[in-house]
Amino acid sequence: MLNCYKLKSLSLLLAASVSFPIYAALPESQVETLDMLKTQALNDDTAYQIIESLTTEVGARMVGTEGEARSVEWAMQKMKSLGFDKVWKEESEVTLWSRGSLKLEIAAPFPHPVVGLTLGGSVGTNGETLTAEVVEFNTLEALKAAKKGSLEGKIAFVSYRMERHEDGHGYGEAVGARVAGASIAADKGAVAFLLRSVGTDTNRFAHTGVMHYEENVKKIPAIALSNPDADLLVNSLQRGKPVTFSINSTASGPTNETVTIANVIGEVTGSEQPQEVVTLGAHLDSWDVGTGAIDDGIGIGITLAAGHYIAQLPQAPKRSVRVILFAAEEIGLAGAKDYVVKHKEEMDQHVMGAEWDFGNGNIYSMEPGVGPEALASIRDFADYLAPMGIAYSSKNSAKGQSDMSALGNEGQPAVNFDPDGSDYFDYHHTKNDTLDKVNQAALKNNTAVYTAFAYYAADSNVNFRK
Amino acid sequence: MLNCYKLKSLSLLLAASVSFPIYAALPESQVETLDMLKTQALNDDTAYQIIESLTTEVGARMVGTEGEARSVEWAMQKMKSLGFDKVWKEESEVTLWSRGSLKLEIAAPFPHPVVGLTLGGSVGTNGETLTAEVVEFNTLEALKAAKKGSLEGKIAFVSYRMERHEDGHGYGEAVGARVAGASIAADKGAVAFLLRSVGTDTNRFAHTGVMHYEENVKKIPAIALSNPDADLLVNSLQRGKPVTFSINSTASGPTNETVTIANVIGEVTGSEQPQEVVTLGAHLDSWDVGTGAIDDGIGIGITLAAGHYIAQLPQAPKRSVRVILFAAEEIGLAGAKDYVVKHKEEMDQHVMGAEWDFGNGNIYSMEPGVGPEALASIRDFADYLAPMGIAYSSKNSAKGQSDMSALGNEGQPAVNFDPDGSDYFDYHHTKNDTLDKVNQAALKNNTAVYTAFAYYAADSNVNFRK
Repeated sequence: MLNCYKLKSLSLLLAASVSFPIYAALPESQVETLDMLKTQALNDDTAYQIIESLTTEVGARMVGTEGEARSVEWAMQKMKSLGFDKVWKEESEVTLWSRGSLKLEIAAPFPHPVVGLTLGGSVGTNGETLTAEVVEFNTLEALKAAKKGSLEGKIAFVSYRMERHEDGHGYGEAVGARVAGASIAADKGAVAFLLRSVGTDTNRFAHTGVMHYEENVKKIPAIALSNPDADLLVNSLQRGKPVTFSINSTASGPTNETVTIANVIGEVTGSEQPQEVVTLGAHLDSWDVGTGAIDDGIGIGITLAAGHYIAQLPQAPKRSVRVILFAAEEIGLAGAKDYVVKHKEEMDQHVMGAEWDFGNGNIYSMEPGVGPEALASIRDFADYLAPMGIAYSSKNSAKGQSDMSALGNEGQPAVNFDPDGSDYFDYHHTKNDTLDKVNQAALKNNTAVYTAFAYYAADSNVNFRK
Repeated sequence: MLNCYKLKSLSLLLAASVSFPIYAALPESQVETLDMLKTQALNDDTAYQIIESLTTEVGARMVGTEGEARSVEWAMQKMKSLGFDKVWKEESEVTLWSRGSLKLEIAAPFPHPVVGLTLGGSVGTNGETLTAEVVEFNTLEALKAAKKGSLEGKIAFVSYRMERHEDGHGYGEAVGARVAGASIAADKGAVAFLLRSVGTDTNRFAHTGVMHYEENVKKIPAIALSNPDADLLVNSLQRGKPVTFSINSTASGPTNETVTIANVIGEVTGSEQPQEVVTLGAHLDSWDVGTGAIDDGIGIGITLAAGHYIAQLPQAPKRSVRVILFAAEEIGLAGAKDYVVKHKEEMDQHVMGAEWDFGNGNIYSMEPGVGPEALASIRDFADYLAPMGIAYSSKNSAKGQSDMSALGNEGQPAVNFDPDGSDYFDYHHTKNDTLDKVNQAALKNNTAVYTAFAYYAADSNVNFRK
């Protein structure tokens, strides 16, 4: 399988690195290749260099921007240069939203400029200044409990602070206000909606992210404040006098204008069952405020590096490995939804998948979502990864994370790898999502895991489907 | 000295807190009061509440802004409410500078929006877009070594990264480029000057601060980039192709227009030698980007709380305690220089002084700058503070920090207290200088030290002068 030159390189690499025990449970020849791939990933910086290239040569790539268009060309070229056998893009259309400008102020009794960001999809104020009194709610639940009409002419403000947890579950508890808060507030009569940013940092910049309007409810501006500015507003309100707030935004709001997006796909063709594909996913788009190094440059780096290592093998695995860089994840998995439509006929050939879209930490857990006959093999693979500090979760309910959940919902088996997400929401959707925040050691570790995973699943005869 | 009610309160306070050993070296009655003051400062949050009030009710207070005018009124009212015997302001005039707007871009080969701040005092581009090629220098020294004319039509960029140290000395090594870089670059022909922000954080916002132009050198725009944006520019340049950069700024530059500033002064009148004053200093102005909680809200909180505690004593110390909130420190100690001029005749009655203008850390060292006959008493006071983790530096060269150095240069004895400044330059002159960054435990500790210091010096008969 491996030629002499490759074997020599491999033995040097292994000698220079940690050695891995051989697991009888996986085929010995597969373990040999897995060890080689893992060692390679742990000892070079291909993933980091991909992120460096993306952030320097493209940078921010929000849907509908020139940066997004450049990112598609960058991804096609990068996949080709990394040795993928086939590279293509699949285009579709989404609604255009533009951020425009935003000026915020606490107007009275103590005037302050305020740092915030219009939420993705929000209307603006047509460039006019909206000034109204602020009513604070500690939680989204408290806002929901307000009486209809009670916020007539007011600005609703949810001051709930997201909690920091290893698995990031504080996000789930906080993000509802971001997504749904504006329509709930408007339904009570509010003229605008503010919330404390959904984030765990204390930096004076806000976290953007997508929001949605309910139909038949007035569309009002939805704006996230930085944590320190939310504190300032809370402290201003605590003095017991009316606090008025001004908003001037030229955000476009939902329009009828559409823009072309593109999933970019690269494949390493399988040597025996090339029609069966193992997918690795990440998303190519980012928000506009940072350079998208963490969200999801890291996913792009990990999945492209994994494909590259496998493409360099003297013998391709049996099945194809397909890296999908999804478009428009940030506005609601638009690219992934389009992929599912376009690949409906071959979805049963999607034998396994995994996504990376959760930042910087070392993977500490894996959970499959596979058919019963595949569990023993998956367990063997989990045993192989165990020395890397990865626990096995036997719930077997994984459907794929982020974009990949759209494929999981259509029956694609999946493994969810869980990294330490303690600091993810410090950077998420902020200006601070930049290259210097990438944890290069964890990146190598996680690239090794994803490379091993893709090779394991692609070089297997196991039927993972339920 | 203390009435029964006060003694009862004191004994309760002492019982509820740590107890302090009695030092024979300081007069026993003084130690009793020092212990009481220290315990009080360690057990309430007056200093924090002062900072909360300042940042909420005033916020940013850059010279020449409406916030600065409000801060003067705020300070007068606050001093009165805190029980100072005399409160007044002393006005003078300085040159007005306004920041205006700023738009920065890496223009080619890979366009990016860039986050930066115009340095204080810099000219702008009159609202026109200046685009030129960037030439990088690793240090200010490297820029100085460039040949005259070699930067004709270019933008000079100093990419030096400030180092983090407990005593903050990395600032001294980095700030020269901020202050002097523009004129040095202009002298070589440059049309603009960029530098990596003088700061130790990795947040995507820049650090402002004052710069100065040499006479007879063309005034060119001087701009600090955030650390991540400086990285991006370095990475862009490393590709070996010309990198062009665009600047559009409406900063006012040096003008002939002046604006009124005011030192705000509060005094607790001495009971025996009221004409002799012990000064505590901080500065009232801040930069415009944060709310000036750290720089120098903490100094305002510490010095006003110290004055308040001493003002509440049943018997004032022998000498007067004068808290001076200096104006316009950020643009070059303008308020302190005016103070020295206005108080020239009574400068020999300034028997001792200390400033707080260095943020958040616990004090770990103190160094006097006093006459030889005062050293024994100072040493006794240092012994009194030693259990708080404060080492004594015997160099005896202190002249007062920040504003207070202007008084030290005119002969005022001083003690310099050195706090741990490891994180100070994460926040310094940035948007992140906000209330949530205040370390409340260290604030209590340092307020206790300054209160004890002011009382010790004011209730002393020692001649501290050289």
